Amino acid sequence: MQSIQSYINDNKDRFLDELIELLKIPSISADSAYKKDVLKTADAIKISLEKAGCDLVEICETEGYPIVYGEKIIDKNLPTVLVYGHYDVQPPDPLDLWNSPPFEPVIKKTEKHPEGAIFARGACDDKGQMYMHVKALEYMTKNNELPCNVKFMIEGEEEVGSVNLGKFVAANREKLENDVILISDTGMIAKDVPSITTGLRGLSYVEVEVTGPNRDLHSGLYGGAVANPINVLTKMIASLHDENNHITIPGFYDKVENLSDAERAEMAKAPFSLEEYKKSLDIDAVYGEAGYTTNERNSIRPTLDVNGIWGGYTGEGAKTVIASKAYAKISMRLVPHQEWEEITELFQKHFESLAPAGVRVKVNPHHGGQGYVTPIDSIGYQAASKAYEQTFGKTPIPQRSGGSIPIVSLFEQELKSKTILMGFGLDSDAIHSPNEHFGVWNYLKGIETIPWFYKHFTELKVNG
Amino acid sequence: MQSIQSYINDNKDRFLDELIELLKIPSISADSAYKKDVLKTADAIKISLEKAGCDLVEICETEGYPIVYGEKIIDKNLPTVLVYGHYDVQPPDPLDLWNSPPFEPVIKKTEKHPEGAIFARGACDDKGQMYMHVKALEYMTKNNELPCNVKFMIEGEEEVGSVNLGKFVAANREKLENDVILISDTGMIAKDVPSITTGLRGLSYVEVEVTGPNRDLHSGLYGGAVANPINVLTKMIASLHDENNHITIPGFYDKVENLSDAERAEMAKAPFSLEEYKKSLDIDAVYGEAGYTTNERNSIRPTLDVNGIWGGYTGEGAKTVIASKAYAKISMRLVPHQEWEEITELFQKHFESLAPAGVRVKVNPHHGGQGYVTPIDSIGYQAASKAYEQTFGKTPIPQRSGGSIPIVSLFEQELKSKTILMGFGLDSDAIHSPNEHFGVWNYLKGIETIPWFYKHFTELKVNG
Repeated sequence: MQSIQSYINDNKDRFLDELIELLKIPSISADSAYKKDVLKTADAIKISLEKAGCDLVEICETEGYPIVYGEKIIDKNLPTVLVYGHYDVQPPDPLDLWNSPPFEPVIKKTEKHPEGAIFARGACDDKGQMYMHVKALEYMTKNNELPCNVKFMIEGEEEVGSVNLGKFVAANREKLENDVILISDTGMIAKDVPSITTGLRGLSYVEVEVTGPNRDLHSGLYGGAVANPINVLTKMIASLHDENNHITIPGFYDKVENLSDAERAEMAKAPFSLEEYKKSLDIDAVYGEAGYTTNERNSIRPTLDVNGIWGGYTGEGAKTVIASKAYAKISMRLVPHQEWEEITELFQKHFESLAPAGVRVKVNPHHGGQGYVTPIDSIGYQAASKAYEQTFGKTPIPQRSGGSIPIVSLFEQELKSKTILMGFGLDSDAIHSPNEHFGVWNYLKGIETIPWFYKHFTELKVNG
Repeated sequence: MQSIQSYINDNKDRFLDELIELLKIPSISADSAYKKDVLKTADAIKISLEKAGCDLVEICETEGYPIVYGEKIIDKNLPTVLVYGHYDVQPPDPLDLWNSPPFEPVIKKTEKHPEGAIFARGACDDKGQMYMHVKALEYMTKNNELPCNVKFMIEGEEEVGSVNLGKFVAANREKLENDVILISDTGMIAKDVPSITTGLRGLSYVEVEVTGPNRDLHSGLYGGAVANPINVLTKMIASLHDENNHITIPGFYDKVENLSDAERAEMAKAPFSLEEYKKSLDIDAVYGEAGYTTNERNSIRPTLDVNGIWGGYTGEGAKTVIASKAYAKISMRLVPHQEWEEITELFQKHFESLAPAGVRVKVNPHHGGQGYVTPIDSIGYQAASKAYEQTFGKTPIPQRSGGSIPIVSLFEQELKSKTILMGFGLDSDAIHSPNEHFGVWNYLKGIETIPWFYKHFTELKVNG
């Protein structure tokens, strides 16, 4: 029986080639022009799960993109791990900032990845991290090392809010029954500082539209005499934060969990260099809510950011126009106990109340999800911690992430099990940005670490 | 010798056909993709001036688009009228709001134009209004009715700030020598309420850029911890007006001319229905500087409007991104005595000072021009007034416009002559907007009125 390390050594070129093929398909779920490619990716995932040793693989249709379900049940009395991932990717824009085309993967060395990194949209988020689990399964089945049952649920709508996954999960509670859910869709602090994500922020994503006059107007003839929807929109958005960068929506903070001084002191121990952080982003100062550190601002505190804004003439040159409409996409990151649907309602009510006479305002809720916290004394966390110890030679640090995987709290509610977030990406991997990449070392380290999780989880579950 | 009325009756179909041909060429000066079309339009203007009776027509090259110069000198001792107009047009976006393609002119009846109106980009601004002068010249030369000398100067960069016209005028003072400048690039109050524009606002047009982090970031991982350039931009723009909608740029109002109560009372006599104004724009309230009426806000008061804003993800669906950059195009309309270059500097200094730590701000001045006032006791104004009386049967009302023709104050400075603004468009003609149009009645009425101006101006000048 071959060790995981030697199996990776023998197969690493193929592991990379297979991932590269997957990354070539532009599975952009947000843009309906790529529908065929998203569906093609689901088919590719199905085939890869079959090849890796699943006994049953199904493409489960939804009202949107299908969910690929696979399983290998070796003994109903043994524990079951449910792996979740997604095969869709973020839109690649702005395209002109990519150094190589987003769907023509290339391996290039970087300062943080001297062994090379795969550059492509989805390399890290989440095709690369999801595919580690497929290859880990391949190792375990080929070498008779699978100690328990495994189920895969790989969806195609994560980047657009997992709109149909909730229904699927609720309708398939029995099929998805499990003892722990395993996801690699987060990051770790550094290659020599392994970490496990124990907290996620929730999300409320809305689109707002401000309408003034019924048509675009000449800014000379009408300027100053009618409400300009863009000026009004900037005023409305600006008023959503006060001078301390607190969010001004009434009731927004009511349910926010306040960490104790001891908990904050514990958090502050995580290695972090503000100078390096600023340098890597080329900014002269950080910015955020008064009274909190950078690491607190992006993990335990809720936020409100404009993700996109547009209106009027945005082409070359000048056009002296007052636009009829102005738009923005706004998202709020939420912390545990904030209810995303309630926050969306509070936003809507408040934003609409900000509209001055002379404009009409529409708030279109987009999607959202709850925040989440994993207890570090759970068997799942302990098993993951041991797995990292085995392959990294050190105990991983529990870490709260600022990101959101809204489906995690839904899993707990519907399937009554805890999720373990074993992420192998780095903050610098530029997910959601141009030049997204995923280190070859990280990819292979993930494949190496995952089978140890299965081993320790089964032992702790069966014996403990 | 044929009267102008009967000449128009005999030739009106041809007058319309010729204008329609001119409107088919998309001479969009702001977009370099249309360079060939802009140049083609200059050639078409040259030919039309030759056909109308000019003795000399030249395409004068500049660093940008050429200026078409034409003249008919009948006697050096007689007065000279210099006609200015422009052959370039505004970009037509948003295209999807046009009911017919912007460069495929069609004549359709409207409520305000029961005789029909020509729908096309540039129909009113300024190809249609400029071409009235070409056809008026044709009538006068063909019928031996030209009482004085005439010069034409038709440029191709008015919609991008007339960047090269100033140099051309300064370098050709002798060639352009004249007794009065005549322009049709404004509007009149209504078809039964003729008016002459006696005031124009100045303009300062800038583009601003806010840069935060050096790349687009994931809003979950960085949200709340770094300055979001879009949020910052909205705050900066919002702060440019106070709660009374006064502009907050220090020094902005220092040179603003304050009208006396008597002058304001005189202005208030112009026919205006606020209810109709709101109805035509489908707004429930007007909006603007406290203490001023709608007609004052858009004529005697300076303004600041965002003409375009963009940043982040603006496509279909959701993208949870913090953009690296956010942009806006901002224009200020200025009143007489405000120096546009000084105002641009005040804006730049103030806007840059608003930037919080964590972002960098760039202000790119685009173009600008001075405001202008024509005295109603001048010979030019009196001649125009008599011309309207002749063809409309009533005395026109002097009116201040909110728009800008920056070149007018430059003409006064360089050529030492006053400009008369005989506009025949209506506010509802949607210039700079989708579905721009120009009434057939207005077009023909302009051709009819212009020769009377030449007659009265020459008589007043020679006899007076």
